Amino acid sequence: MEKVEQIAKKAKKAAPSIALATITERNEALTKMADALIDEKRFLLTENQKDIDEAEQKGTPKPLIDRLLLTEERIADMAEGMWQLVQLPDPINQTLETIERPNGLTMEKRVVPFGVFGMIYEARPNVTVDACALAIKTGNAVVLRGSASAMHSNKAIVTVLKQALTNTTINTACIQLIDDPSREEANRFMKLKGDIDVLIPRGGASLIQTVVNEATIPVIETGVGNCHVYLSKHADLELATSIIVNAKTQRPSVCNASETLLLDQGFADRHLQKIAETLIEKGVTLKGDENARAIFPHMLQADEEDWRTEYLDLTLAIRCVANLEEAIDHINEYGTKHSEAIVTEKDSERDYFFQAVDAAVVYHNASTRFTDGFEFGFGAEIGISTQKLHARGPMGLQALTTYKYTVKGTGQIK
Amino acid sequence: MEKVEQIAKKAKKAAPSIALATITERNEALTKMADALIDEKRFLLTENQKDIDEAEQKGTPKPLIDRLLLTEERIADMAEGMWQLVQLPDPINQTLETIERPNGLTMEKRVVPFGVFGMIYEARPNVTVDACALAIKTGNAVVLRGSASAMHSNKAIVTVLKQALTNTTINTACIQLIDDPSREEANRFMKLKGDIDVLIPRGGASLIQTVVNEATIPVIETGVGNCHVYLSKHADLELATSIIVNAKTQRPSVCNASETLLLDQGFADRHLQKIAETLIEKGVTLKGDENARAIFPHMLQADEEDWRTEYLDLTLAIRCVANLEEAIDHINEYGTKHSEAIVTEKDSERDYFFQAVDAAVVYHNASTRFTDGFEFGFGAEIGISTQKLHARGPMGLQALTTYKYTVKGTGQIK
Repeated sequence: MEKVEQIAKKAKKAAPSIALATITERNEALTKMADALIDEKRFLLTENQKDIDEAEQKGTPKPLIDRLLLTEERIADMAEGMWQLVQLPDPINQTLETIERPNGLTMEKRVVPFGVFGMIYEARPNVTVDACALAIKTGNAVVLRGSASAMHSNKAIVTVLKQALTNTTINTACIQLIDDPSREEANRFMKLKGDIDVLIPRGGASLIQTVVNEATIPVIETGVGNCHVYLSKHADLELATSIIVNAKTQRPSVCNASETLLLDQGFADRHLQKIAETLIEKGVTLKGDENARAIFPHMLQADEEDWRTEYLDLTLAIRCVANLEEAIDHINEYGTKHSEAIVTEKDSERDYFFQAVDAAVVYHNASTRFTDGFEFGFGAEIGISTQKLHARGPMGLQALTTYKYTVKGTGQIK
Repeated sequence: MEKVEQIAKKAKKAAPSIALATITERNEALTKMADALIDEKRFLLTENQKDIDEAEQKGTPKPLIDRLLLTEERIADMAEGMWQLVQLPDPINQTLETIERPNGLTMEKRVVPFGVFGMIYEARPNVTVDACALAIKTGNAVVLRGSASAMHSNKAIVTVLKQALTNTTINTACIQLIDDPSREEANRFMKLKGDIDVLIPRGGASLIQTVVNEATIPVIETGVGNCHVYLSKHADLELATSIIVNAKTQRPSVCNASETLLLDQGFADRHLQKIAETLIEKGVTLKGDENARAIFPHMLQADEEDWRTEYLDLTLAIRCVANLEEAIDHINEYGTKHSEAIVTEKDSERDYFFQAVDAAVVYHNASTRFTDGFEFGFGAEIGISTQKLHARGPMGLQALTTYKYTVKGTGQIK
């Protein structure tokens, strides 16, 4: 098995060639890669089965096995994703700005690929395919560090995709997979600043935390969402109910689902009982503060820990607040700067919430579930950034690019 | 002395108020701060003298004492810098993009302040003033961690500036100084992710390296410049000579000065002797590879270590290369992605160099010394980013902002 240092060097060396490839060449490569996935689906399914067998022997929980599983349909969806990517405009090589200086220098700010990005992720073979496709489209090289438990699948996918690139102008070295799944290699990988330009972790909170703590490569943090819905005293009851039901129950396992319901005390006095009954009917377990339980006693006691918890299941924390200010303070204290919603009929409350809440996406009279690249019309999604550097919220292809200044002179000195 | 955790919390708590301040309020605060520097110059000079005395007792080298020194003129320059900042347009609150979705959601991408940024820097009181001024202009709170050896000066400056804010609508808590200069406090400070949104180190390579290694807060890396000038065989001799002389000698201690001269072998055969003589006349010490020394023996032997060195003095490494490709390989291997120049009369060489060299700023027929915010017309400069995330090259006010999406709905659920 190759050391991460060698692997990263190979990617770095290959990066300039793909940065220079035309959009036609990159799209052609994507098409060939998509075709190869379909053509080689039997091989992919066989290799994936080995991972599934090992996972079952280890007693891996069903939802995790499901995430690991490849099927004919899923492979077709991955290929379809690549074809869709072909349709999107070239994300690189535009001139963002031209600056003419009094001394005659002409400066152009041009969009360019990062160079090499790294992905660290859990046992999801679809992330392997996505990352390779996004790398080729954006003119980047990529180094993949997947999970040991998906190694057969990841190796098979990378073999198929690199094989497809041999019939194109794109250097196969632009795709690199770390095949030693040890923690030591991963730790050294995260410190290869200079060879890897940016690192994107995808997975649960603990994976992301580890990468943030260990990496010296700049990181784009994604995905942890402790999202809130706040119902003002000026909220419409029907609209409020449908939004919190949707935000909590439509797909509770994802980061843009809501975890805490905040209600204006007066609104709660009038309507919490009815809202709580509706949520319980939908299978939601409620955990309330004192004030909420005073109105509707059939819920568990919520404590400080609940305000911080991303349940990712059908549990909802409920807290009554005195006013909009208190709701905002709660969100800014406990939220993860992901997605936050207010339900109100009053524009001034909406505007204040929009300004004062510190989050990537703030909603008025809509569910937090809309925070994703496709709902934003980006056509592709890298992840949802919860940091403020570089990219915030849903990230499209642009998030895998940077810029450089080119300066044309005629002998200018200072 | 307060713990960094408490200091950071205070800044975080104050941040929303300054984000909501109008540009008129922020500019008024800047004007009052500038006036206060002038009014309190005697106090500032007295306190600064304490730092100078201590530094002299410790035998601090002269250039470092000079960087630490405040004078009436320097204080006037700092105030002038603030008045100039007042003239610049509001860096926040613009709408970058409006997205109307088929489901009726209206999404706006709005420029907002980071919230709280942290600065870690060496014994330069002017950075304290700059950071506070930039924070107020961009609607951010700031936490300052200066050097122990500038503590009297930093405390005095912060006292004066906060005093000035008491007569404005801006919360004085937006400016925070860490007054315990111990390394333990600094190390904990760098890990206050969640309270500090971004960390900007300013200083030498080792300070920056420490911050990159230790911080969990996202970092904007600045300032290390191992810059090159490459003379192609199609270079104009006169222009080439004036550019390398300027890039090396005009101010050798700064990051955009050049450290290595690369020459096409054919060009070197014809012209290196003359160029070398000119450089030596200007006081430059030359260190060449075998090929360069074969042409002009009066230089020291350069080795691998020289290609990596940011001399920051009147030393220049010289290497002959076979062609443009070899020059680009050298730069991408040893450069720090800061500023790189080619001298050539051939547009095709220029264009290829622009594309293939991985640096924030690439120059054609101009000195690398132009890489700074003022030369780029930004009016203010935060530093020069050598990373690719968020901001690259000279950073203006925009680099201290991020964006958020506001989404207006009418009850949309997914």
